Amino acid sequence: MSKDTIPYKIYLEENEMPKAWYNLRADMINKPAPLIHPGTHQPMTLEDLSPVFCEELCKQELNNTDPFIEIPQEIRDFYKMYRPSPLVRAYCLEEKLGTPAKIYYKFEGNNTSGSHKLNSAIAQAYYAKQQGLKGVTTETGAGQWGTALSMACSYFDLDCKVYMVKVSYEQKPFRREVMRTYGASVTPSPSETTQIGKKILEEHPGTTGSLGCAISEAVEVATSTPGYRYVLGSVLNQVLLHQSIIGLETKAALDKYGIVPDMIIGCAGGGSNLGGLIAPFMGEKIKGNADYRIIAVEPASCPSFTRGRYAYDFADTGMVCPLAKMYTLGSGFIPAPNHAGGLRYHGMSPVLSQLYDDGLMEAIAVPQTEVFAAAEEFARVEGILPAPESSHAIKVALDEAKKCIETGEEKTIVFGLTGTGYFDMVAYEKYHDGIMDDYVPTDEELEKYFETLPPIE
Amino acid sequence: MSKDTIPYKIYLEENEMPKAWYNLRADMINKPAPLIHPGTHQPMTLEDLSPVFCEELCKQELNNTDPFIEIPQEIRDFYKMYRPSPLVRAYCLEEKLGTPAKIYYKFEGNNTSGSHKLNSAIAQAYYAKQQGLKGVTTETGAGQWGTALSMACSYFDLDCKVYMVKVSYEQKPFRREVMRTYGASVTPSPSETTQIGKKILEEHPGTTGSLGCAISEAVEVATSTPGYRYVLGSVLNQVLLHQSIIGLETKAALDKYGIVPDMIIGCAGGGSNLGGLIAPFMGEKIKGNADYRIIAVEPASCPSFTRGRYAYDFADTGMVCPLAKMYTLGSGFIPAPNHAGGLRYHGMSPVLSQLYDDGLMEAIAVPQTEVFAAAEEFARVEGILPAPESSHAIKVALDEAKKCIETGEEKTIVFGLTGTGYFDMVAYEKYHDGIMDDYVPTDEELEKYFETLPPIE
Repeated sequence: MSKDTIPYKIYLEENEMPKAWYNLRADMINKPAPLIHPGTHQPMTLEDLSPVFCEELCKQELNNTDPFIEIPQEIRDFYKMYRPSPLVRAYCLEEKLGTPAKIYYKFEGNNTSGSHKLNSAIAQAYYAKQQGLKGVTTETGAGQWGTALSMACSYFDLDCKVYMVKVSYEQKPFRREVMRTYGASVTPSPSETTQIGKKILEEHPGTTGSLGCAISEAVEVATSTPGYRYVLGSVLNQVLLHQSIIGLETKAALDKYGIVPDMIIGCAGGGSNLGGLIAPFMGEKIKGNADYRIIAVEPASCPSFTRGRYAYDFADTGMVCPLAKMYTLGSGFIPAPNHAGGLRYHGMSPVLSQLYDDGLMEAIAVPQTEVFAAAEEFARVEGILPAPESSHAIKVALDEAKKCIETGEEKTIVFGLTGTGYFDMVAYEKYHDGIMDDYVPTDEELEKYFETLPPIE
Repeated sequence: MSKDTIPYKIYLEENEMPKAWYNLRADMINKPAPLIHPGTHQPMTLEDLSPVFCEELCKQELNNTDPFIEIPQEIRDFYKMYRPSPLVRAYCLEEKLGTPAKIYYKFEGNNTSGSHKLNSAIAQAYYAKQQGLKGVTTETGAGQWGTALSMACSYFDLDCKVYMVKVSYEQKPFRREVMRTYGASVTPSPSETTQIGKKILEEHPGTTGSLGCAISEAVEVATSTPGYRYVLGSVLNQVLLHQSIIGLETKAALDKYGIVPDMIIGCAGGGSNLGGLIAPFMGEKIKGNADYRIIAVEPASCPSFTRGRYAYDFADTGMVCPLAKMYTLGSGFIPAPNHAGGLRYHGMSPVLSQLYDDGLMEAIAVPQTEVFAAAEEFARVEGILPAPESSHAIKVALDEAKKCIETGEEKTIVFGLTGTGYFDMVAYEKYHDGIMDDYVPTDEELEKYFETLPPIE
């Protein structure tokens, strides 16, 4: 098709927007392994999960059978405030590269949370409200998830308690203030507000905290305060379900113009964005209706797919959550200070882990400075200043588009641009000043962390 | 019309986007007073302006006759990357307020510059490129204009030298890094790179700079370096012309659904956003084809419309630029540390000044804490975190919508939401912590500044 036919940005009309989420698990031949109880090692039941998570979300977590789950009207109304997100044809980038490839990206950054996280935050807040809860608790590292959740809670008039890793609380005051603008209470973790927080502060006075510790505090508050539950922004099956809105919109926009992608590329931390983006495409691939290359991109500093083990592991460093079977570097793994905060998780979504193990998708690990070089190249022609996380996908999309220059192939590349980098300028500054590191763990270091894996078959 | 008929967001199709800017001056009965030469006090000619500004832009500056000026295809292609901007129906806000009013806002923040500034930056960069220039210079305070210009120059492969007020350079490193990402060179002003900078540093060692000083440095570099010109992001007639894209899109979107606004509200600093938003509506009003209330909102701390004088004044504190007849507080006016950096200009666009003097529009000055209260109220229901500048318009739109609750009138309110507040979280933090001030200048203080007005009839 010509430039005149396919617009720069494809927006769906309101009546073309998805009315149901797509539950890829229903169509998977090999289902993802169930979460198991940390004490009994038995699959987690609805009863096991309900004290921690909202009931409807527990059901979604365990649902491996229904391919479509209706999106409640209230959530669809909220989606209308910032969705559909545009599917952008990167005409400027194609021209600048001189590639015969056709490049599209699904841009999820045009909302105040700055990322796709809002898609699941609003769903989780909705079900909490439906259950008559007073509020929810969560942890946040860099602050994207916390921001998204505070926006969602504000909309449904729910209390929102965010435990923010202390070092981020102090070094990233802007994200904290965005959360406060939406009425969330933000507590630096570890804190004196919980038993576990007090214990950690006693044992490690002056600690700047960790995500594992913040999770433990958020879970303690949720399970010990009447009317509260805990919510999480990635890894879980329910989160991938909600994020399928990304892939469904992408596919609807492509179908509208008869475009069939050759490859779909996304960054992968816990897997929420990638799992959502690829869901409907992977469904077709599993059914044999189409054959797409599907590529996960992760940081070389935290390579769970490319160098991890597929095993049961603790989902959190505090070891209070259920165990999940996933590609993991070991829950004791301490990632290097890589600036893509959202990709520093030691494990990976059980759904994506199973698909990867089944050979249905590929994974590539890329070093940080190359990611920032790609980010800058992209920003200068497409305008959008990408988040470091999203830029992992950009890096591989650019590489693939450049290959097409050599081969002359007119491949159609779709990638997920999960968010903007406005709150990541410290990382960009390091890149500009040439002081960004490219730390990659050695095999010996990884072996040491694998020893922390629990002995479960 | 019902909620089902008018979507949450009205996007124009590519073929519905404006192909020409609207030059309101052509339809004004009383034309804006011409710029005059600081030495001779004679109207500035093309020859006077050309050493400072690009030739085509000088022609646009002086053009009071052509109602439409075609938008070059290259600029229209760039516009397609981030335009059309959505006209949003604020259903959520209306419901939360319980108002019978119908509220719409034109949102200009979905681009990396975070504001409408990009609309003129890309036009000015284009004409510089067309003229065969090597680069452009400019000044920036908070950094929005500098960011927009660096994006535009990057797209056309032009060099971009930004003089950034030193205090902002040091206190707002994030904006600086965004500009560097787009390849601009950013120099803290005053600097050793110019004669005027050296002189100021000698006279005032340790000064943290001012916008006036940064303008002087940028103009010196532009006029003394072959292949360079100076560009400016507000006040000028040419800037209002480019910004008419905002109003043209707004009107096209409203017309598409048969919506006729009762009032149009915008914030006013130098006037670039307001002038652009209201242009086609004001054109109709002048011709007697429609009657809209048009309201400019300014900070009570910098009240050029509501408490200023309509007189010839220096456009810059350095007194190197031509003089303009405008509502002004005097070029010596030092605004309070109000956080809406973009609204701290002592004067006002000559076009808007003439329209205000002719009684064709109203002006309201609002105090800062009320503006932030409105910003937070808006953010919590509409999702978008607004810039402090934009929030001035929100404040008055909310007040008008609340009046409709009392009167029962179903007024249609349109306001301009010029940008996002992601880089303004220090101001939000002060608001949250209750330490934001509401300084308003006394009559005595204003009288003192009026004495700096040049004695020109």
